[in-house]
Amino acid sequence: MPIAIPASPSKLDKMNSIHITKVAQQVEETNKVLGAGGKELPAPYKSSGNEALDTLAFLHLLEQLKVQKRSGWIREGVSYFPRVSYHMCRMALMAMMIPQDPLRPLDIPRCVMMALVHDLAEAHVGDITPVEGVPAHVKHQLEEEAMDSFLNEMLGGDGNKDARERFRSLWDEYEARETPESKLVKDLDRVELALQAVEYERSQDIRTLSPFFVGSIPNLEHPVIQKWAETLMEERRQLWASRGREKEEQDGLGGAKVGDKVKKANGV
Amino acid sequence: MPIAIPASPSKLDKMNSIHITKVAQQVEETNKVLGAGGKELPAPYKSSGNEALDTLAFLHLLEQLKVQKRSGWIREGVSYFPRVSYHMCRMALMAMMIPQDPLRPLDIPRCVMMALVHDLAEAHVGDITPVEGVPAHVKHQLEEEAMDSFLNEMLGGDGNKDARERFRSLWDEYEARETPESKLVKDLDRVELALQAVEYERSQDIRTLSPFFVGSIPNLEHPVIQKWAETLMEERRQLWASRGREKEEQDGLGGAKVGDKVKKANGV
Repeated sequence: MPIAIPASPSKLDKMNSIHITKVAQQVEETNKVLGAGGKELPAPYKSSGNEALDTLAFLHLLEQLKVQKRSGWIREGVSYFPRVSYHMCRMALMAMMIPQDPLRPLDIPRCVMMALVHDLAEAHVGDITPVEGVPAHVKHQLEEEAMDSFLNEMLGGDGNKDARERFRSLWDEYEARETPESKLVKDLDRVELALQAVEYERSQDIRTLSPFFVGSIPNLEHPVIQKWAETLMEERRQLWASRGREKEEQDGLGGAKVGDKVKKANGV
Repeated sequence: MPIAIPASPSKLDKMNSIHITKVAQQVEETNKVLGAGGKELPAPYKSSGNEALDTLAFLHLLEQLKVQKRSGWIREGVSYFPRVSYHMCRMALMAMMIPQDPLRPLDIPRCVMMALVHDLAEAHVGDITPVEGVPAHVKHQLEEEAMDSFLNEMLGGDGNKDARERFRSLWDEYEARETPESKLVKDLDRVELALQAVEYERSQDIRTLSPFFVGSIPNLEHPVIQKWAETLMEERRQLWASRGREKEEQDGLGGAKVGDKVKKANGV
């Protein structure tokens, strides 16, 4: 049974201060399930009993990856924002750029596939971000239910056994964040966000994107990705220097540095 | 040395009737290289001599996959058209759906990666389609030059040796179209186009998309993808039947059937 989030956007805004137990009461009141941006979610797909039709429903569902917007950007006044499919595509291509290192063996093709699956649930629920007031466990539950619907109702037939197992295994591995591959994909998720932020600062002259860097670059773990991010942050410094705002934009970072949290956690 | 295409769109329209030798004369006249939609291409990237900066240039270049439009749709009056990144992302996810078959062994992770690389050159040249009057060999040369610039100038450093070799090997294999993996990715390219066409017919009530099916579905080879396409074409038939245009839209297909060309080529 899906957990319902209150239907009115004004209520949604207050969610952070509403005690979690209230959510259960609101299920009774509204009986509506909301995804990203407070939009009401359609009911999850149920199998038609015809494997070919269910499979086609999944192929069409993937179109939502083109439609769904990466919603963090909407709040920041960005006038053109990326779709989920683009974010996953650039992450997957960046995974292919990671060199083989005997000291850090990685299954690169698996990282590529995991990058393409890690946000798949957003085809149904959209990109739910922390500030929307949807509690993390509710977001997780909505995404799990979306994946269950995809895998059991759309790809539940005998002919899709391999597909189902591949998607499930990649999704579970990413969510558990225990393997080196899942940690790399999380790094790619973060650095893709930082790249996009610099690209928007440059093309749209937006000055309030510091939170995107503060929340991403200190957590980067892989040395190659740390190096990419260091070059990126130097490029950003020069961008704002050329616009006479170097100090303000550096101050906005509050001292955040690439890989800083990881170094501190390791006692460096 | 890139081959130049005449700069004026009116000249571009006449390209099909201009003898190829004239192209060389026009290099002297215009010295401009045009990509998709007759847009002037920027000069290919040249290495800065700094590996970190060159790598960052590649990461930013990937943003173009979000920007570049799949240009075939523009002509058909579609009001919202897909970006290259979305096309590659759905193809890669569809590759993960192909079941293992001992009679047709396939390296699925390689198919996934090839789907993500097969249109990479479009990040520079855009999506050049046959009707734009750019001869096939010129299109191929522009794309080869784009890939050379990506791999030798952006990813030319020692740290990107593995990346360079992965991208080159996947690109070359797809272009040669000899391996089962490259043939599967071509099938995915075709069926993704057909899927998108039905989605536009449904959402935008566009009646002239038959050429997209005639040019794609008869060439499908893989039995699983043929099955997807058959279900899709039945869905399309029902869509137009519900709008009272079943006969006209079936006639528009001119008898084209899923896998027909492949069966004929095999003497079936």
